[in-house]
Amino acid sequence: MAKKIVIVGGVAGGATTAARLRRLDEQAEIVMFERGEYISFANCGLPYYIGGSITKRDALLVQTVEGMSEKFNLDIRTLSEVIQINRDRKTVTVKHLPTNKTYEESYDYLVLSPGASPIKPPIPGIDDANNLFTLRNIPDTDRIKAYIDHEKPKKAVVIGGGFIGVEMAENLWERGIEVTLVEMANQIMAPVDYEMAAILHQHIRDKGVRLILEDGVAAFEQNGRIVKLNSGKTIETDMIILAIGVKPESELAKQAGLEIGERGGIKVNEYLQTSDPSIYAVGDAIEVKDYVNGQPTQIPLAWPANRQGRIVADHINGRDVRYNGTLGTAIAKVFDMTVAATGNNEKTLKRLGIDYEVLHIHPNSHASYYPGAFPIALKLLFDRKTGKIFGAQAVGYDGVDKRIDVLATAIKGGLTVFDLPDLELAYAPPYSSAKDPVNMAGYVATNLIEEMVETIQWHEVNDLVEKGECIVDVRESIEREMGFIPNSINIPLGQLRKRLNELPKDKTIYVYCQVGLRGYLAARILMQHGFKVKNLDGGYKTYSAVYA
Amino acid sequence: MAKKIVIVGGVAGGATTAARLRRLDEQAEIVMFERGEYISFANCGLPYYIGGSITKRDALLVQTVEGMSEKFNLDIRTLSEVIQINRDRKTVTVKHLPTNKTYEESYDYLVLSPGASPIKPPIPGIDDANNLFTLRNIPDTDRIKAYIDHEKPKKAVVIGGGFIGVEMAENLWERGIEVTLVEMANQIMAPVDYEMAAILHQHIRDKGVRLILEDGVAAFEQNGRIVKLNSGKTIETDMIILAIGVKPESELAKQAGLEIGERGGIKVNEYLQTSDPSIYAVGDAIEVKDYVNGQPTQIPLAWPANRQGRIVADHINGRDVRYNGTLGTAIAKVFDMTVAATGNNEKTLKRLGIDYEVLHIHPNSHASYYPGAFPIALKLLFDRKTGKIFGAQAVGYDGVDKRIDVLATAIKGGLTVFDLPDLELAYAPPYSSAKDPVNMAGYVATNLIEEMVETIQWHEVNDLVEKGECIVDVRESIEREMGFIPNSINIPLGQLRKRLNELPKDKTIYVYCQVGLRGYLAARILMQHGFKVKNLDGGYKTYSAVYA
Ligand SMILES: Cc1cc2nc3c(=O)[nH]c(=O)nc-3n(C[C@H](O)[C@H](O)[C@H](O)COP(=O)(O)OP(=O)(O)OC[C@H]3O[C@@H](n4cnc5c(N)ncnc54)[C@H](O)[C@@H]3O)c2cc1C
Ligand SMILES: Cc1cc2nc3c(=O)[nH]c(=O)nc-3n(C[C@H](O)[C@H](O)[C@H](O)COP(=O)(O)OP(=O)(O)OC[C@H]3O[C@@H](n4cnc5c(N)ncnc54)[C@H](O)[C@@H]3O)c2cc1C
Ligand SMILES: CC(C)(COP(=O)(O)OP(=O)(O)OC[C@H]1O[C@@H](n2cnc3c(N)ncnc32)[C@H](O)[C@@H]1OP(=O)(O)O)[C@@H](O)C(=O)NCCC(=O)NCCS
Ligand SMILES: CC(C)(COP(=O)(O)OP(=O)(O)OC[C@H]1O[C@@H](n2cnc3c(N)ncnc32)[C@H](O)[C@@H]1OP(=O)(O)O)[C@@H](O)C(=O)NCCC(=O)NCCS
Repeated sequence: MAKKIVIVGGVAGGATTAARLRRLDEQAEIVMFERGEYISFANCGLPYYIGGSITKRDALLVQTVEGMSEKFNLDIRTLSEVIQINRDRKTVTVKHLPTNKTYEESYDYLVLSPGASPIKPPIPGIDDANNLFTLRNIPDTDRIKAYIDHEKPKKAVVIGGGFIGVEMAENLWERGIEVTLVEMANQIMAPVDYEMAAILHQHIRDKGVRLILEDGVAAFEQNGRIVKLNSGKTIETDMIILAIGVKPESELAKQAGLEIGERGGIKVNEYLQTSDPSIYAVGDAIEVKDYVNGQPTQIPLAWPANRQGRIVADHINGRDVRYNGTLGTAIAKVFDMTVAATGNNEKTLKRLGIDYEVLHIHPNSHASYYPGAFPIALKLLFDRKTGKIFGAQAVGYDGVDKRIDVLATAIKGGLTVFDLPDLELAYAPPYSSAKDPVNMAGYVATNLIEEMVETIQWHEVNDLVEKGECIVDVRESIEREMGFIPNSINIPLGQLRKRLNELPKDKTIYVYCQVGLRGYLAARILMQHGFKVKNLDGGYKTYSAVYA
Repeated sequence: MAKKIVIVGGVAGGATTAARLRRLDEQAEIVMFERGEYISFANCGLPYYIGGSITKRDALLVQTVEGMSEKFNLDIRTLSEVIQINRDRKTVTVKHLPTNKTYEESYDYLVLSPGASPIKPPIPGIDDANNLFTLRNIPDTDRIKAYIDHEKPKKAVVIGGGFIGVEMAENLWERGIEVTLVEMANQIMAPVDYEMAAILHQHIRDKGVRLILEDGVAAFEQNGRIVKLNSGKTIETDMIILAIGVKPESELAKQAGLEIGERGGIKVNEYLQTSDPSIYAVGDAIEVKDYVNGQPTQIPLAWPANRQGRIVADHINGRDVRYNGTLGTAIAKVFDMTVAATGNNEKTLKRLGIDYEVLHIHPNSHASYYPGAFPIALKLLFDRKTGKIFGAQAVGYDGVDKRIDVLATAIKGGLTVFDLPDLELAYAPPYSSAKDPVNMAGYVATNLIEEMVETIQWHEVNDLVEKGECIVDVRESIEREMGFIPNSINIPLGQLRKRLNELPKDKTIYVYCQVGLRGYLAARILMQHGFKVKNLDGGYKTYSAVYA
């Protein structure tokens, strides 16, 4: 007899499940419920449609109900909310929103892909703010766009410096709106660490966005014309975007008695089955296992939703497929820059008490002599003993996505930092260097592990300055005009061997250069001449991203 | 006692070895001989300096003799050719070219990195052609550039459609010169297969370059003003670039009795030692092991030279490091397009009698709704049984380098096609799709192995047409206006389920669409309704790249 599969949610996870189910089984009965009017739309494109770089609204609709029904022979019911799961009789109760009529629909397998909804806390005045928006779907998008087109706001406040907040800040700016971005933490873009985000802070401010960190919203006043912050600051504004995160839509699952994780995500096993094996769940609504550290986490991104949807369809059809956890590879365009990360960041490793080693390098995106090369700030976190790669972060104007993808692939391939120099990546001057940035990260990591050099981190410098330690700048003197570490002395690398007598043998010498390379060369020279020496990891560039 | 290392050749392999040697050992005596005037120059940038996109000649000089000597405390001797290796007494004989004086220099370890020289066969008239150039180093570059600047040639013939030939064709064209590119084989860019190169042929011709395939040079006449081809064609020209390949500079090694491979490369072991363990060799001059098939090969590229140079320095210093073979990852800019490849191509696998499966897809470089997305023609070769990845090729306007790098990493990580869907790559609309092209390749490969669909290849189509087989075009009828396979009938995918009765149950149905995706969906429907069906891999797009 034909299987009957009911799917809740018709976008990333849901629509993917439906399509693959049909390819696997022409006979199955497949019913897909979607609360909204649209299925299979490009969530990720919404900010860019508002900003105007995507010009056609239709382009956001990846599949239409008619098209998809026809191609995949599906029973798609939009404006239909599943309001209850009746596990005992294997049915769902559905409310047809235009008529408010409810009915039951039976299933053999139920797939939940309800996503996550924007967090909207009960901040005083929030309900009276008639210029406040959240962004999740097409109607939200239409509302924001109509407001901008008709009300022509001059000023906007974006609350939340995550992906959606930053993308919205950029896209409102594209529309000529004066933007203030407010973030509670000390940095935007939580997947990267502070000193990496600092590069973005600078860039965003250079673009003319007012960035307020370490401050939250206390209240909205005058129907949202005034945003009052915890610090007491007030901001006048014509519109507000609230983008402080999303929470899994797990209420339905919870009411049905399915297991829910601590942070509200639906719990699933490696086959993506909930605690009821005939009910699967995927996408933003579920809790996943962190691929690197094995801990439960939530990663509301499109790749996992798509991947999980396909796996569920396969498993329902008897295939032995598993979901192995989520790395959390993520990327965003931030004005002219790109920020991307994969695996665990330093904050996470610290929190979990995992021992790690860290490096920062600034290689060019491609051969420096070929036009269009820009440095990439690349950070790598790894295990000092095994060389296991915990995570990587990159910020730059060019070639950032490629390096993070290569590193994400390396992690999934179980490669260690010792293998990175052996990655044979494509080189011609417009694309890379003969040693790709990823190779370089491998070299630098290996040198750390093999004790070719010891390093200190950017955040340790000011302390050394205060203590009056011996800090040696090995750059050319002209480079110091753009800034240097206070109280550092200058001995250019080329003169070092001749000026060894100027340096103390009894205390540690801290060397630095612009990015870490010449500092490393200096360290090698000094170490072999019997000095105690440490090199500033990432050089003045990483240090000054935070302190200059 | 301090080791004394003598290096022959001061560019990619040689200079890298010297730098790393010094970092490892401050005491070592390091002598680097270079025949030319310059060391450590950017070979790969030379065509772009001629073309004008690199404007400063200085930018080509990565390191100067003074700078490098100082930084690394090296004894660098330019204009000094090593003319003999005296293995018995561990010395080399050196000729100082300006003075013609020779002397001996002793070594504990000798490192050969002499590179490869342009092939210049004794074609009739070649010695009288005073407008004929080859390109390897700075003096060659100066000569070519001066000729263009002063003689203002209107027409040029480039002989050889490899990387350097194609780059030179493009860069001469950039200078406003009418270019004819002559290639003996039926395709340019040998690392990719014919149907992939066909995309480039079209693009090059669209740019106005005259491309002559399957024809070689028979003679040069009138001091190089006439190029006569084997076919009898004659081409008038103002200048000629000869770029038909390079041959290892292994003469010195050969005379010293070191083992030489069949194709002229110096033989080395996994530590890059020649048959004399105190003599190492790296770079273009050596024979390497093909990483995929294990056979000896020659890969004259910069990544291997750099990697090998570092390994040699490490091995001389007692470290246990090995060179594991070369994948041959390669890339080139071809006007507005990029072509890249890694691992083995179909020609190689066929030649070696290795059983393989093949797929072609055409995914967008990033989300199609975000501006600037272009399709990537991506070809994957793999083992049908194990899923082992043999190689990959890509051609497109955007995102080609990233996908080949990810696949090269996957190969080095020992990942199979079954793992590709699990690569968690960075997605936001400007960078990729929720299923990255590499994920997609994994899905398509898995479907082939799991017999979800059978495919035919582009080169099998015309035969089927001739035999009057049943070929069904499942695209929308409007898409046929841009071309279709002769004698194919049109049943758009959306109508297929309703029109099954129009199709024969007793013979194989060959379905196709634009890129292979809808053909796959059609195949799934038909298979499950009891039809015998095969899908055209890569769709009309791959087919028409060759035949339209
Ligand atoms: C503005 C924006 C930008 C984004 N940008 C990126 C990006 O660049 N990269 C990236 O990786 N990810 C991005 N994301 C996240 C990505 O879109 C989500 O991770 C992905 O869509 C999750 O898929 P899902 O199927 O779990 O949920 P969704 O795609 O949200 O689909 C869930 C659907 O279920 C419906 N639903 C919920 N409950 C019910 C019910 N009870 N009955 C019927 N229907 C129901 C909802 O109406 C919704 O349409 C972005 C998201 C947004 C909002
Ligand atoms: C125009 C051009 C473009 C290129 N583009 C790319 C590209 O985009 N990507 C890529 O990966 N590769 C590219 N390459 C290839 C790359 O440059 C080589 O693979 C690499 O330089 C090889 O390094 P090597 O040390 O073996 O040889 P080389 O870099 O050629 O150095 C060898 C040196 O040894 C010297 N020498 C030889 N014999 C003696 C002797 N007996 N005594 C003293 N000195 C001697 C030579 O004068 C020469 O300078 C390109 C090459 C050229 C010429
Ligand atoms: C579009 C959507 C309905 C999914 O449909 P889908 O059919 O699974 O996905 P695609 O159209 O990408 O096609 C993938 C399938 O085609 C196959 N395929 C792709 N290219 C192919 C080709 N050239 N030849 C043969 N098969 C091909 C793949 O193997 C895969 O099939 P499989 O799963 O059976 O292996 C769903 O992803 C969706 O709704 N997306 C929009 C929402 C969303 O993802 N939002 C977040 C990001 S903005
Ligand atoms: C430049 C050249 C002399 C090599 O010098 P090199 O010092 O080995 O290479 P780089 O300058 O790239 O530096 C790499 C070293 O710096 C280290 N390094 C790089 N960035 C670093 C950073 N930010 N912090 C600390 N160390 C760093 C690496 O670990 C590596 O050292 P290691 O080998 O001891 O591990 C040589 O590659 C050359 O001559 N190149 C031009 C010719 C050529 O390659 N042609 C073909 C391509 S056009």
